[in-house]
Amino acid sequence: MKALGEHMLLEYYGCDALKLAHSDEVKEIVVNAVRQANGTVVTNIFHNFSPHGVSGVVVIAESHVTIHTWPEHACAAVDIFSCSARLDKILLRDTLKEQLGASEVTTRNFQRGLVRAAALVDAK
Amino acid sequence: MKALGEHMLLEYYGCDALKLAHSDEVKEIVVNAVRQANGTVVTNIFHNFSPHGVSGVVVIAESHVTIHTWPEHACAAVDIFSCSARLDKILLRDTLKEQLGASEVTTRNFQRGLVRAAALVDAK
Repeated sequence: MKALGEHMLLEYYGCDALKLAHSDEVKEIVVNAVRQANGTVVTNIFHNFSPHGVSGVVVIAESHVTIHTWPEHACAAVDIFSCSARLDKILLRDTLKEQLGASEVTTRNFQRGLVRAAALVDAK
Repeated sequence: MKALGEHMLLEYYGCDALKLAHSDEVKEIVVNAVRQANGTVVTNIFHNFSPHGVSGVVVIAESHVTIHTWPEHACAAVDIFSCSARLDKILLRDTLKEQLGASEVTTRNFQRGLVRAAALVDAK
């Protein structure tokens, strides 16, 4: 079996709450980090929630990156879903840790879309 | 510890490949399914890839739903990330299974953003 995508689930704790509070700032941090990690940005949406928190999505040619922030908990949850080895997920994770001022990041990795290897060859 | 969000990772197999091929059709299926499941749609992006496949994101007040399709494998990977019990994730999962004509769906559930329960009380 082969996976069609790799998915990294990240939780950032102990962040700088001010960096999680406004969609414009979160957008700048995430989009820049994606580009540094060789991601090709197709489009993005960042949205402020009331009373606080940001949801953001970056659609990339390699799949997507999402973020949800809880400034009141100094916490952010990030997903990196990629169908290409071109995207440097580790660099992206670590850049975000630095940029969000996080004291801790937890990482869970999953394979997505398991198909028979033969089917992949047939589709080429 | 309390979770700030619940995340369901879904893989749909044996789908109707024609339903996975065009962003307009995938968008209609996903957005309608989100609404049926009590999701409040904030905005959405659906994107066709070359030579085939669709990536789509629905930002909802409850967090997000994403889809990536591989028509050549009759496969779709869906994420339902929710911070509210209002969104009926099971109904959403099952509606998509029917609408995509999938023969099988696999489900993995994860908690996101684990914080101390006391911190949640403080933030109210």
